[in-house]
Amino acid sequence: MATNPTLPTALPVSEYDRRTEAVRERLAETDADAAGWFSATSIAYLTGFHHVQTERPVLLVVTPEQSAITVPRLERERIESNRRIDAVHTYFDYPGGDPVGTITEMVADLGVERLRADAEGPPGVMGYEGPPLSAVDIETQSWVDRMRWEKSDAEVALVRESARWANLAHRYLADAAGEGVHPATVSQRASMEASRAMLDTLGDRYVPRVRGSGPVHAGFISGPQTRLPHGHTANRRLDAGDVLVTGASANVDGYRSELERTMFVGEPDDEQRHQFEIAVEAQSVAMEQLGPGVELAAVDEAVWAYFEEQGVTDLAQHHVGHNIGLGAHEPPYIDRGWTDHCEGHDTRTPADALAQPGQIYTIEPGLYTDDAGYRHSDTVVVTEDGTERLTYFPRDLAGNIVDRPER
Amino acid sequence: MATNPTLPTALPVSEYDRRTEAVRERLAETDADAAGWFSATSIAYLTGFHHVQTERPVLLVVTPEQSAITVPRLERERIESNRRIDAVHTYFDYPGGDPVGTITEMVADLGVERLRADAEGPPGVMGYEGPPLSAVDIETQSWVDRMRWEKSDAEVALVRESARWANLAHRYLADAAGEGVHPATVSQRASMEASRAMLDTLGDRYVPRVRGSGPVHAGFISGPQTRLPHGHTANRRLDAGDVLVTGASANVDGYRSELERTMFVGEPDDEQRHQFEIAVEAQSVAMEQLGPGVELAAVDEAVWAYFEEQGVTDLAQHHVGHNIGLGAHEPPYIDRGWTDHCEGHDTRTPADALAQPGQIYTIEPGLYTDDAGYRHSDTVVVTEDGTERLTYFPRDLAGNIVDRPER
Repeated sequence: MATNPTLPTALPVSEYDRRTEAVRERLAETDADAAGWFSATSIAYLTGFHHVQTERPVLLVVTPEQSAITVPRLERERIESNRRIDAVHTYFDYPGGDPVGTITEMVADLGVERLRADAEGPPGVMGYEGPPLSAVDIETQSWVDRMRWEKSDAEVALVRESARWANLAHRYLADAAGEGVHPATVSQRASMEASRAMLDTLGDRYVPRVRGSGPVHAGFISGPQTRLPHGHTANRRLDAGDVLVTGASANVDGYRSELERTMFVGEPDDEQRHQFEIAVEAQSVAMEQLGPGVELAAVDEAVWAYFEEQGVTDLAQHHVGHNIGLGAHEPPYIDRGWTDHCEGHDTRTPADALAQPGQIYTIEPGLYTDDAGYRHSDTVVVTEDGTERLTYFPRDLAGNIVDRPER
Repeated sequence: MATNPTLPTALPVSEYDRRTEAVRERLAETDADAAGWFSATSIAYLTGFHHVQTERPVLLVVTPEQSAITVPRLERERIESNRRIDAVHTYFDYPGGDPVGTITEMVADLGVERLRADAEGPPGVMGYEGPPLSAVDIETQSWVDRMRWEKSDAEVALVRESARWANLAHRYLADAAGEGVHPATVSQRASMEASRAMLDTLGDRYVPRVRGSGPVHAGFISGPQTRLPHGHTANRRLDAGDVLVTGASANVDGYRSELERTMFVGEPDDEQRHQFEIAVEAQSVAMEQLGPGVELAAVDEAVWAYFEEQGVTDLAQHHVGHNIGLGAHEPPYIDRGWTDHCEGHDTRTPADALAQPGQIYTIEPGLYTDDAGYRHSDTVVVTEDGTERLTYFPRDLAGNIVDRPER
């Protein structure tokens, strides 16, 4: 896969080498023989091998010299060509293929007795029911989770690229939304058209990471559903006066961005305009405050102070934002409790309470009245000397009214 | 939400009462004061409250007399109207809102000291980093996971309804696919059109369970990607001679079905036709063998015996199937190791090794050559005296050739 400095759509191979090197450095500080990961996201982060996590266990083991992985048979061909994996062990399927026996053989082959892994065994929430892994002495670590906080320039470039296609999908969505149209039609057509634009633009620079759909998605909730920050899309055509809370993203080599807008079908009334303005100003407060070395809790508190000043704290339902990357929600969070959380957590340092260059935040304070919700979300990267907003759809009221007569 | 016996699109409220009653019966057999669930799927199963599981902990507690739940502030309005929850406790957000303190207060209010919960704490894979829950003595249980194996008639009706809309999307997909067309356009347009057909047909009987998209999805992988059972959708127009492996499903009040077909762009060559016929016959072998009281391992073994007879065991990469319902992959699995798994697992009984009425299986044996993959997947419910296939798209070769001149 060729990469292009002006159109970065695939993570450079050197990134995986750097990451593996970093976990080997962490491993060297312990008395363990190897480090291990059961999490699909962590394995993708270290190797570029992306798989669907199911009940079938997968374990990547990294020793000072080698990397080996146990996968179900159905992943063998995908991983075999991965030059970052020295040995691939496969079991036929779960549970009959004896995944734990295969893992046991793998660690024996590597001579591993003490493993620092991301969990004590395969994640049960995905359907795995045991048996536990007893062949090796496991202590847990969350090295990759922590490494993922600060993105490299190459990772930031992928999120920036994601924001471009999210913006296009959002433009298609805004242009098609209006009184009388159906959410499913507008959303799915905008997703389709933006996906095709991305795929046709990138050509063979596109890295396939999605199954059975396109890489770009845009959609919205509308009317009363917007009162819920995580509302569902109702089966109801848009009416004049409706508030929309939209969302758009694109998958670029596994990385994503987040773009959300509060929009109005026709001119908003005074109350809607008022709440919109406070929510957008709260977002500005957070974006202006965020920067390298800034305490994250203070950013959340600054928004809260603004809400207090406006007398709307009872309309707030959540903190200001989260990180985003390979995951849709990642730590750190812009949350007033973040500093205390870091102080109370044994693997966090005081510096973890502060924003650091390379962290990519969503900035999305919201207000929720009895009638509607008001929330923009932008994706912002912290740089050495400030921040850069990666999403760029208009934030002002005029840019967020759909179905205007002049269109 | 009205329900209609001939068009079942919402789970009847009585189902939730029955489920809660069942967990109270299980609870009564223990010395615990209450049962608890951190899993979003289990909470939806018991209460009908569907939420997006994130780093923010949610805990449902059921005592012999009451149900209470701790949720983040942003879920309060969605749960407040739920008549199956007697008390809703909220914290502002994670981590600053003190979720564990809120949970501690809730269990103290209920007088709970010993809790049988589905986990020892909130799921770490979703981003929760602690602190652990120490206010109450937790022993684990997986009662709901086990209850979900056998679907009620009402649940089966929802999956049957899902299969109708999946079939429509798949028909749209098949009609639009052909030489020179792009996967993203065909997939996303079929999804959009089937979503609209479902939404327009169901009207206010539709229960919104999805965010920012439609309830129906269809798509496919093509050409070399089909060699991988979990391949990705490539950025490449269809060519004559391509093999497709499709997938279609619809969300009906949280329940889903699985429909997959191996299709050909134009007439298949002899080798493609041969592999197709073996894969379809293997599926027939499994469907004919499955039924109430049948050992699941034996169904997988029957398919394997057929593959041995055909000399293609080296082309198989996975077992025959899994259950489906609220989850895309659920136990039990049609896997040759399932009987041993049940014998070695402390909460399984010998009867758990056998298919039971109400279980809903995907039947999807596959063959994967160096050139392409061959796999149909159908959704089949085990009944009192046999099975019923819920998905009904044609399985034969003639029904799975796209871009035929006569179309």
